[in-house]
Order: sequence, then C-alpha cells, then structure tokens
Amino acid sequence: MKGPLRELIERLKTEIPISSVIGLTIERYENGCLTLSVPLGKNINQQGTAFAGSLNATLTLAGWSLVWLILKEAGIEGSIVIQDSAIHYRQPVTIDFSACCCKPDPATLEKMIGALRKKGKARIALAAEIRQEGEVAVAFNGRYVVQVVPKGT
Amino acid sequence: MKGPLRELIERLKTEIPISSVIGLTIERYENGCLTLSVPLGKNINQQGTAFAGSLNATLTLAGWSLVWLILKEAGIEGSIVIQDSAIHYRQPVTIDFSACCCKPDPATLEKMIGALRKKGKARIALAAEIRQEGEVAVAFNGRYVVQVVPKGT
Repeated sequence: MKGPLRELIERLKTEIPISSVIGLTIERYENGCLTLSVPLGKNINQQGTAFAGSLNATLTLAGWSLVWLILKEAGIEGSIVIQDSAIHYRQPVTIDFSACCCKPDPATLEKMIGALRKKGKARIALAAEIRQEGEVAVAFNGRYVVQVVPKGT
Repeated sequence: MKGPLRELIERLKTEIPISSVIGLTIERYENGCLTLSVPLGKNINQQGTAFAGSLNATLTLAGWSLVWLILKEAGIEGSIVIQDSAIHYRQPVTIDFSACCCKPDPATLEKMIGALRKKGKARIALAAEIRQEGEVAVAFNGRYVVQVVPKGT
C-alpha cells in the first residue's frame, strides 16, 4: 500500500476508533475511485444481514477518505466534516461488503480546489455505493465541508 | 425498566453487536417518545467530536426500536427494516448524546396498524433528533418497512 493510503488507514484506525471496531480496510484506490471493505462479522443485525448503521458508517468514511485523498494530492491541509447525507437500503447485504466512492468530474473537482485556495472553504457532493452480485444494494449521497487549516497550526 | 424495554435492549445487544460496542442504552420511553443514549467514549472522530457513523447508527436504532415498541403494543409480530434515511449534521456533538424518536400522530399510526393487519405489510416514516444544549444538533428522517411474521414461524 502506498504512503498516503497507509497514512489514511492509520489515521482512520487511531482517530476514529469505530472504524477499527467494524473492521475497516482499504481495498483499493484506482482510477479516482476509493473502495473500503468491511467484514460482515460483527456488523450483523437481527436478521443476520449487515446492520444499516455499519453500512452507513462505511459509506460515510468512504466519502470522507476520498476527500482526504483529494486534499492530499492537491497539497492542501484541511479539516473535513460531513454536512448531510441520504441513503437508500435497496437490498439486504448478506456478505462482507465494500463501499466505493469515485471522484466527481474534473471540472467540479477543479472548482472545489479553486474555492479552497481562494476562500479557504468549499463543499463537495459525493455519491458512494455498496454493490452485491453486480447490483447496487446500498446507494449513498453525502455532502462534505472542507476548511483549509492555516499552515503552522 | 419495564418488560418490553428490557426485552428490547437485550435484543439490540445480542442481535446487533454494534449497538453494544457503541455503548447503547435506553434512557427513557414516555409520552410516545423513545430516547436512546450513547457515551461519546469510543464514538469519537478525528476532531474529538461524535463520529457521524455513530450518530447515524443511534438515530437509525431509535427509529427501529420505536417501531418495535409500536408492534409490541399492538400485539403484532413483525420484521422491521429501514428502507432509506436522510440526516443533517448541523452541529458537532461534543458530549455523550441521546437520540429521541417520537411516535407519529394517532391517525398515521392507526393507518399503519390497519395496513399491517389487512395486508401484512406497511411503511412508516419517522423523524428523530439529537439535541445539544437545547438545539437540534443532528436531524434524521427514516422510512421503515414492517412485514408481519405469520404466527407459528
């Protein structure tokens, strides 16, 4: 695993203890898409399928982590918080699951980076999903707010 | 704690292990409103405030648990799953938190119970929130689907 991804997973595990508890790992990061994985294991619900709270947490972290990588690649130090999200649980998830979140189109990304450099603050809307047997089982949309951390703080 | 609430917390803890991990307890159930509590403890994020995934999980469980109590009171055995939800993180949560979910108005409730008895299936929309210092810090809306479990299964 490359440097930034190693740093990302370390930060998630140490700074957000629940990500460790649910068994979060980085599956891959390629072509602008980040995939985080979680074993079904202790993330089950009363029906033996994946608990909605764990699915939501994994998708929320996939979006957060992708923004973290975007900032890293742009050389910007920033704080990232989720503002709001909507989630649709289409099918019960019955196996270990992966949440995939892809970068928005280059123009949107450029606009966000521009706002960060100019105003020190920007919003970004991201879609993420969990697939099972080729179908979208859980669809997620989240909006994140990024604020530049002044150098030296 | 009365019988149904004791049964509810036992079921949550044994059937949804993450509810135990986040430290979920039932704070109170009165006037048709259920309040679940969670210590900030291990539910922190990189900023030392409550992790969005834990906030969402607690609100999701508050809605699920209220539906469970509604069914219990109506003498209906049913399976409950969340279909979709939307959440707005208005303020960072910096202390132990409580998610409160109240029953919908009697007419809506009656309609749901009627649909369950007649068709064996119903949907219910619930609002839930986490307050901090008198203000809504996190607002949640979830839709749950209930299916009657035939007796003897």
